[in-house]
Amino acid sequence: MGPETGAGPELRAAGETVPVVLAAGLGTRMNSRLAKALHELGGQPLVEHVLRAVQEAGLGRPVVVVGYQKERLAELLEERALLVEQPAMHGTGDAVMQAVERLGPAVTDVLVLYADCPLIPADLLRRVVTRHRESGADVTLLTTLMPDPRGYGRILRDAAGRVRGIVEEREATPEERAVHEVNTGIGVWRVERLRRVLPHLPWHGEERYLTEALGAILAEGGQVEVVEAEDPGLVMGINTRRELAQAEARLRELTLERLLAAGVTVVDPATTYVDPTVEVGQDTIIYPLTFLRGRTRIGRECRIGPMTTIVDSRLADGVTVQQSVVESSVLGTKSRVGPFSHLRPGTRLDRDVAIGNFVELKNTQVGIGSKAGHHSYLGDATIGSRVNIGAGTVIVNFDGKEKHRTFIGDQAFIGCNSNLVSPVEIGAGAYVAAGSTITQNVPADALGIARARQENKPGWSARRR
Amino acid sequence: MGPETGAGPELRAAGETVPVVLAAGLGTRMNSRLAKALHELGGQPLVEHVLRAVQEAGLGRPVVVVGYQKERLAELLEERALLVEQPAMHGTGDAVMQAVERLGPAVTDVLVLYADCPLIPADLLRRVVTRHRESGADVTLLTTLMPDPRGYGRILRDAAGRVRGIVEEREATPEERAVHEVNTGIGVWRVERLRRVLPHLPWHGEERYLTEALGAILAEGGQVEVVEAEDPGLVMGINTRRELAQAEARLRELTLERLLAAGVTVVDPATTYVDPTVEVGQDTIIYPLTFLRGRTRIGRECRIGPMTTIVDSRLADGVTVQQSVVESSVLGTKSRVGPFSHLRPGTRLDRDVAIGNFVELKNTQVGIGSKAGHHSYLGDATIGSRVNIGAGTVIVNFDGKEKHRTFIGDQAFIGCNSNLVSPVEIGAGAYVAAGSTITQNVPADALGIARARQENKPGWSARRR
Amino acid sequence: MGPETGAGPELRAAGETVPVVLAAGLGTRMNSRLAKALHELGGQPLVEHVLRAVQEAGLGRPVVVVGYQKERLAELLEERALLVEQPAMHGTGDAVMQAVERLGPAVTDVLVLYADCPLIPADLLRRVVTRHRESGADVTLLTTLMPDPRGYGRILRDAAGRVRGIVEEREATPEERAVHEVNTGIGVWRVERLRRVLPHLPWHGEERYLTEALGAILAEGGQVEVVEAEDPGLVMGINTRRELAQAEARLRELTLERLLAAGVTVVDPATTYVDPTVEVGQDTIIYPLTFLRGRTRIGRECRIGPMTTIVDSRLADGVTVQQSVVESSVLGTKSRVGPFSHLRPGTRLDRDVAIGNFVELKNTQVGIGSKAGHHSYLGDATIGSRVNIGAGTVIVNFDGKEKHRTFIGDQAFIGCNSNLVSPVEIGAGAYVAAGSTITQNVPADALGIARARQENKPGWSARRR
Repeated sequence: MGPETGAGPELRAAGETVPVVLAAGLGTRMNSRLAKALHELGGQPLVEHVLRAVQEAGLGRPVVVVGYQKERLAELLEERALLVEQPAMHGTGDAVMQAVERLGPAVTDVLVLYADCPLIPADLLRRVVTRHRESGADVTLLTTLMPDPRGYGRILRDAAGRVRGIVEEREATPEERAVHEVNTGIGVWRVERLRRVLPHLPWHGEERYLTEALGAILAEGGQVEVVEAEDPGLVMGINTRRELAQAEARLRELTLERLLAAGVTVVDPATTYVDPTVEVGQDTIIYPLTFLRGRTRIGRECRIGPMTTIVDSRLADGVTVQQSVVESSVLGTKSRVGPFSHLRPGTRLDRDVAIGNFVELKNTQVGIGSKAGHHSYLGDATIGSRVNIGAGTVIVNFDGKEKHRTFIGDQAFIGCNSNLVSPVEIGAGAYVAAGSTITQNVPADALGIARARQENKPGWSARRR
Repeated sequence: MGPETGAGPELRAAGETVPVVLAAGLGTRMNSRLAKALHELGGQPLVEHVLRAVQEAGLGRPVVVVGYQKERLAELLEERALLVEQPAMHGTGDAVMQAVERLGPAVTDVLVLYADCPLIPADLLRRVVTRHRESGADVTLLTTLMPDPRGYGRILRDAAGRVRGIVEEREATPEERAVHEVNTGIGVWRVERLRRVLPHLPWHGEERYLTEALGAILAEGGQVEVVEAEDPGLVMGINTRRELAQAEARLRELTLERLLAAGVTVVDPATTYVDPTVEVGQDTIIYPLTFLRGRTRIGRECRIGPMTTIVDSRLADGVTVQQSVVESSVLGTKSRVGPFSHLRPGTRLDRDVAIGNFVELKNTQVGIGSKAGHHSYLGDATIGSRVNIGAGTVIVNFDGKEKHRTFIGDQAFIGCNSNLVSPVEIGAGAYVAAGSTITQNVPADALGIARARQENKPGWSARRR
Repeated sequence: MGPETGAGPELRAAGETVPVVLAAGLGTRMNSRLAKALHELGGQPLVEHVLRAVQEAGLGRPVVVVGYQKERLAELLEERALLVEQPAMHGTGDAVMQAVERLGPAVTDVLVLYADCPLIPADLLRRVVTRHRESGADVTLLTTLMPDPRGYGRILRDAAGRVRGIVEEREATPEERAVHEVNTGIGVWRVERLRRVLPHLPWHGEERYLTEALGAILAEGGQVEVVEAEDPGLVMGINTRRELAQAEARLRELTLERLLAAGVTVVDPATTYVDPTVEVGQDTIIYPLTFLRGRTRIGRECRIGPMTTIVDSRLADGVTVQQSVVESSVLGTKSRVGPFSHLRPGTRLDRDVAIGNFVELKNTQVGIGSKAGHHSYLGDATIGSRVNIGAGTVIVNFDGKEKHRTFIGDQAFIGCNSNLVSPVEIGAGAYVAAGSTITQNVPADALGIARARQENKPGWSARRR
């Protein structure tokens, strides 16, 4: 993977502390064929959350150590990270060594992070790096107090409070097990020290652990600082699907806390699913069972939900969306959507547009105050203002070979169960009779009609019975 | 606001204890442009909940002190309360003084309540007022024991248990901070005492606090009684959107507790949203993700949900509604609706009616045992019994200018994708052929057909490819 | 009920320990007209869960003691249990006596179970029965430690740890009330002992309690063993709708725990409703607000939900179902469904089929790569591969008297808002023009068209205005 990462020359020019994100593992306890770094949290792969924290912390382009499914990670991360391959799953000590070997001489320190620890806050990263720089330490560990520390490596300190080591659960004395301060694994390490100690780490079966570099550095007389994270929930790794679900819940809670503080009413935070990337305006009410995803921006005084999904869309002020799906669309002021509507990518509603039940729009623009209240498919169309679309209208945008576009002028009236066979143009103020299949343009103010005359056959139904 | 409240003369005739509801504030921590009293809880403005408790407690027409957005509150409350304006946001002491100044001489006591304390139970109000009357106290405070009393004013008592004051957190000694009994702010006050002490309350910046009237009254030798609320969750105010969401959860829980006790199965109380105004019969099952709102009444042995919203509707016994929206409708015994149906206001289904997927009804009556199973819009129609409505049927009730009504007789059969252009009448037993646009009446037992003859053009499709 | 249960002769041939399930009661605190054993949990009557545990434990055909609504229970259980009627509600002692009186001489022991204790794990039953057999005890009780034992009968032991009795709450001394080990009621009893003591149990009002048989057996010098259940949540009975909801939540949790361990991502376990009978493959993601019910089997790497219900269906690998309802259907590899689709029983989608919004299928087979993207009703049809079904298509399968079948050949194109009046056959590669009602077969590669010519009436609409 050498050439595309370009780690060598680029890193020589990088800042003194380089983030190294360990993302090579499969995550045995996930019981998955997917690399752990690629599991989704809040709609994004785990590793993306770590990269966002790194970016928010202003830490520059990270090194990502990859292994399992490295091609998928390379495709995902592209130019945003320098990928270093860990050829075999030999543990964290080996992973960091792979990264360190690729660093240029200008890099003095590495901040070790984990793709499976996605909730790490940017300001905590800044605190760790700043403490490391200011103290001149060789290692600055991020620790946290766990109410139940079982299973974690305990931080051992001397009487003066200085770190004298980390002891793993299985090797700890009862007294050591009583310690609640645990190692998160996250920390800044002086590269010079790592270069010396990493190659000599002991093997445990197939693996070598970064943690054990600490003892070696202390033995050399190195200085170790600690930053304590207040909230263990944000700094501990994800090892199981249960923990993934817990992180998902935690991420939602953080996002909703931000929305509530911004003056958004969230009727039931427990059943409201908002991606961290979403913004919502003041006095908007989000009803339960609602999903706001991706780059969605919602204005003030909207009413969203219940049972609604909005993805990558922009909603102006005073918009109502009920029990609908909206994707990559733009909704104007006071537009109303739902229930049971589906706005597919490329929908643009002007202000005061009303889209009712069982209506699908796709790549279609609708002008001010127009209405499509019932059962319609509107695809690849430009619809004027104050147009009325009857129930059962279909814009026939596909002829089996190609897609075409339909134009409907202002104040046109489209009768029920009619087909507008594209490409076709309905003039302003024109009227399409119910049940018509329109294949030719209807001029402005004209009636377009295409239907057979009604016949009644008296007694037919009685005879049939 | 003098004339419309008529506070002077009307109150002279009022009972001796008048409820005074403080509803003037904006609620800074809500981060809102909406008056706090108008924020929604369980589908209703906060202030409505307090008015309902007042009414249930039999306490007579309240005074509501308004300020921010007083016009919206006046419109909401209309004749149900006497509105008194607080001209500037000068705190609770000033708000109560505004109310007291408008009271006639017959009013001896006021029960001070808060629009942002909406879960207050009616029986607790009765207890406070009764204790006040029976004890002859000057002030009767409602207090509660908070597990974590931080931030609240503590109740100070002497060795004999008599109240000797309230101390605010910031002025409390460590010993006083250890007190768990806190002031809810709710209480009954003798008007005569208030008139004397309120004008002399000290200012804190722009505000004067009712709490401080207590000290003045005690200094005069006044008698203070206490009623202790058992459940702090019902008597503490809402100051943030988070607390609003918590109150919403609490209100839901209270309502569901009532339903469960009444013999309703609620499969998942955590995701079932029932307004306090709703009634549900014995042995009905409510599946998760269901909303029952407003004045909805549901019979026995119904199956409602999942993913269903029912508003202001009446359902008889044995009704099934699945994944649908029902508004202001009446559903007969054993009628079945959904999934993906939308019953809009004015729908009336007789018994054994079946409404299937993607069907919308509006202002339409459907007779015994009729079926509309698939994709139909039925608006402004009267449909007989044992009628079969085919998929894609549209009742064309709007001609672009006016709405008209359609009548369909018993046992009629409406073919698929047909339009019934209103006003039109389909006789009993008549048959409308699929694909017909019907513009004239079809007599009873007749066939109505309006469609073009089919032509096949051999090889056309192959050539086109 | 004698003849149909055939308890006498059949049981003579049965194994030595017979499970006896008490299912006679109405459950007063349920406030219901339904027998408690018939209340639903995880989509099945309570008693079914107990029968499944009995079966999984390999314990052979149980006796079920019925009373209230015995006919409904008989219909439900049919041949799977021997029903014994308890003629009047005289308590657990009487119920077991009714069963014991019907047992043949070969039955040496009974395992007493309760229909309202549905979460009892099969391995716990095996443990109790095994302990009983191996110890040669007269009674082997299942007990558990309750954090809050109020209301339950306490297990009293002597200094050597041997059981010396059970004391009910109301008769317990303060010291006895401090005991946390409580009687679950579940246990194995030697029939010989029961036959002697049951007829002499004291009456408490109208009832006699099995618990009191223990004292009598101990007084005779009988031996009592105990198996302690670790998790009280799995062994305590359901007496109220609240407890039913709690058991439902617990059952969901157990099922989801199994899925998570099997490598399924469950985005929000709190709003995911999976029946215990469902299986889901590795790396499938289940989005919130999703119901998987009955005998559903889902493959690997599927994406299911949100807001989706799947009942008794089989999904291959890589299937996507969003905001839809799927019943008794089979979905091929990488097929895509929703949002707002309804697949009714008998739907079979081949691989790569795409079913879009507002589409209903029933008893219909769809070939490889075909698409029905919008607003269609497809009933009783066989559809080939790479077919395109236009929006608004209706297969008119019902003529008011009978249902017929439609055949659509490979690569056919069905125009929008068309009707295919069954029985009818559309040849391979044929093209149906939009808006056509097709009543005769369309040959392969032909065009079928049935529509009126369009007329435009200039100025008509303007004049009408």
